Amino acid sequence: MSAMQQLSSPISSSSSAFLSHSSFNFRSKNVSVPAKRIGICKCVAVPQEAQTAYTTKVSRNANMAKLQAGYLFPEIARRKAAHLLKYPDAQVISLGIGDTTEPIPEVITSAMAKRAHELSTLEGYSGYGDEQGEKALRAAICSAFYSGLTVEQDDIFVSDGAKCDISRLQVLFGANVTMAVQDPSYPAYVDSSVIMGQTGQFQKDIQKFQRIEYMKCTPENGFFPDLSSVPRTDIIFFCSPNNPTGAAATREQLTQLVKFAKNNGSIIVYDSAYAMYTSEDNPRSIYEIPGAQEVAIETSSFSKYAGFTGVRLGWTVVPKILLFSDGFPVAKDFNRIVCTSFNGASNIAQAGGLACLSPEGLKAMHDVVGFYKENTNIIMETFDSLGFKVYGGKNAPYVWVHFPGRNSWDVFSEILEKTHVVTTPGSGFGPAGDGFIRVSAFGHRKNVLEACRRFKQLYK
Amino acid sequence: MSAMQQLSSPISSSSSAFLSHSSFNFRSKNVSVPAKRIGICKCVAVPQEAQTAYTTKVSRNANMAKLQAGYLFPEIARRKAAHLLKYPDAQVISLGIGDTTEPIPEVITSAMAKRAHELSTLEGYSGYGDEQGEKALRAAICSAFYSGLTVEQDDIFVSDGAKCDISRLQVLFGANVTMAVQDPSYPAYVDSSVIMGQTGQFQKDIQKFQRIEYMKCTPENGFFPDLSSVPRTDIIFFCSPNNPTGAAATREQLTQLVKFAKNNGSIIVYDSAYAMYTSEDNPRSIYEIPGAQEVAIETSSFSKYAGFTGVRLGWTVVPKILLFSDGFPVAKDFNRIVCTSFNGASNIAQAGGLACLSPEGLKAMHDVVGFYKENTNIIMETFDSLGFKVYGGKNAPYVWVHFPGRNSWDVFSEILEKTHVVTTPGSGFGPAGDGFIRVSAFGHRKNVLEACRRFKQLYK
Repeated sequence: MSAMQQLSSPISSSSSAFLSHSSFNFRSKNVSVPAKRIGICKCVAVPQEAQTAYTTKVSRNANMAKLQAGYLFPEIARRKAAHLLKYPDAQVISLGIGDTTEPIPEVITSAMAKRAHELSTLEGYSGYGDEQGEKALRAAICSAFYSGLTVEQDDIFVSDGAKCDISRLQVLFGANVTMAVQDPSYPAYVDSSVIMGQTGQFQKDIQKFQRIEYMKCTPENGFFPDLSSVPRTDIIFFCSPNNPTGAAATREQLTQLVKFAKNNGSIIVYDSAYAMYTSEDNPRSIYEIPGAQEVAIETSSFSKYAGFTGVRLGWTVVPKILLFSDGFPVAKDFNRIVCTSFNGASNIAQAGGLACLSPEGLKAMHDVVGFYKENTNIIMETFDSLGFKVYGGKNAPYVWVHFPGRNSWDVFSEILEKTHVVTTPGSGFGPAGDGFIRVSAFGHRKNVLEACRRFKQLYK
Repeated sequence: MSAMQQLSSPISSSSSAFLSHSSFNFRSKNVSVPAKRIGICKCVAVPQEAQTAYTTKVSRNANMAKLQAGYLFPEIARRKAAHLLKYPDAQVISLGIGDTTEPIPEVITSAMAKRAHELSTLEGYSGYGDEQGEKALRAAICSAFYSGLTVEQDDIFVSDGAKCDISRLQVLFGANVTMAVQDPSYPAYVDSSVIMGQTGQFQKDIQKFQRIEYMKCTPENGFFPDLSSVPRTDIIFFCSPNNPTGAAATREQLTQLVKFAKNNGSIIVYDSAYAMYTSEDNPRSIYEIPGAQEVAIETSSFSKYAGFTGVRLGWTVVPKILLFSDGFPVAKDFNRIVCTSFNGASNIAQAGGLACLSPEGLKAMHDVVGFYKENTNIIMETFDSLGFKVYGGKNAPYVWVHFPGRNSWDVFSEILEKTHVVTTPGSGFGPAGDGFIRVSAFGHRKNVLEACRRFKQLYK
């Protein structure tokens, strides 16, 4: 057998830096990273093969080419890498990308380990599961997050994460829809829209893609768009509690949003991945708003509740009564996408999800969320004490710090240069984010405290 | 917290049969299934809400509407369900969908359980991993499957399965490419092409989508297309060992294929998910053919090697020197898709993959593959002894049985009606599959033996 015979051979060397993935995909870690791990792109132009470059006759997807502009995290990675080259001994702290750092509660990992072991038994083995997720998990999600609302268990599609579902939703919508996003917003909405061909080119002067409506969310409007000035679009991406601003829409605001969608015949894709961070009386689900099930899809995730960023588990709700203009149920097409492009979340991850929703699991998740919320408070208080206007934080693990009149990238660089702390420049989330910095509360306590100590030194 | 407060509430009932997912997604199980689990679609036309049907003004994606025709497994599910209603006490055996049935070797599940437990420790916890997969796993895949070939570890993108990667590749290619598939072939290639808008309508008379080249693979041509009569397309999907015919292309044939692609400037997407089932001297990877790395992507999976159909782990190789017509590396765009639409395979599944590629894991995987190959032999010998022309089987877990002049669905129905065994009608994989039945070798031994006993009774 090939795989077996070849095992004794040495691992093929990977010396080419021609396509250094890390250079356009670097994931900033929350702890300090030695410079040599960063993998700077050397951009060696000539492949190491002796052959001259053969090109196929397949045209590159023009939508992919549009993407080059404005992608946030590679640029942060590049700058972080350059920083580490400059300061190889720096204790860099990342409060950037929003990666969870705290261990997953044992009640949850034990359930996953148990499921793994069971897969070695005749009784416990299972192969393909339902693409939509295991019945018990769908029922538990319905009960834990949507009890008393109009959501039913078979409206819930379990997935490997909200980000993945956002792209699947875009594939479902296709190239001919128009869309709106909050400005600033999580880059995946815009990027997946560009990939599907829903947009025109990126306009460098205004930092926006053609054909996307950027709904401005700033302190002036309480981070809720002035809907009277927003043109109709087919799709409205709306994230609350918001990444990056940390703002959570009120019941009144969401009622307005649902009404706006209904008047326009739009579909809202509501991202509630941070709902458990809500401290105030804001709705946890769009379906708390009457009529929302006729106009809204909701996507969410275990990532930030249980530290499942690496385990991969989320879900999307597509109500049966959400209909396209011809009366066809959106859920039927989404189901078809899920069955064709996806094969269900890992069964082990699903066992973890079920444990998350047990009474002990829910308590443990709340403890995790509570821990990060304490971090958030520490960060908020720090910037507050330094005289900054600080937004978000109360209902989300992100603190949105205002540096009026300043360029976000300049502030990002200043903080990195002087404190070795990686943040995220607000303009990376959209033009209305300029002048802001997003500080993530995901971090070990000691790192958060140390970062805040350095902030205080810098801005005292 | 909402999720917690609501836990005590009863699970919302899911009594509506309006959108019975099982009706268009049923997964046939390898063991007998009581009729009540099947969930027949009642197609209740009126949603249970009192509201009249509100429709959004969002147009349904026209590509999704094209799909309705020709989808295989729902129809099988429908017929199986009807059969179980008719014979509620029947011991139905499924040799249909190809779902693995044997437990995962303990060396592999132990590694997954260990990783799960480690996620509860400060040292062992990890959040977001590289979207492309963990370095150690990419290195191990490179070593186990591509040693001595031109593949490098950073050419390997770890995923949640080949089917998922096929759709991601289609998103990468976009709407404007032309494609060819083997006829018959695994339905996901065609369906994902339709969804992306690469095709025209389904033509019922010839059972083909417009704008797709169906490369006929029949006993007459040794299940390898006559490339001299195949028009150029941008993309060529090619699966070997093949699902459904079980045919494995020879080195000479694959050399022809690579030459054909190179002359045409096409990109081959080579599906090698059954490579470990190869008994003969056929190549296990397209990269065994010189020059293939300039024209070929390869996708593969742990599903059928280690029983990972539910655990979800696969990979795709995109060589750095594979270039679009403008010289842009395909791998860079695929990386962008992976980073935007995907967040990496579950870290626990990846720990399992690494264990699969340890010396003990490789041995255990070969044992699993060997077991299914014994099943294949039993099925082949059965049909052979009954005087049928039998194809495939030697290098694949699928037996392709010829019923010359007969309609596949009629044969499927005859077998189901008289033996209570679910197979797959060949025409479901493409028009050239008509007159054939695919019998899957994935099953417990006693079920395979019992199915063969019934086949012998029916066709003696």
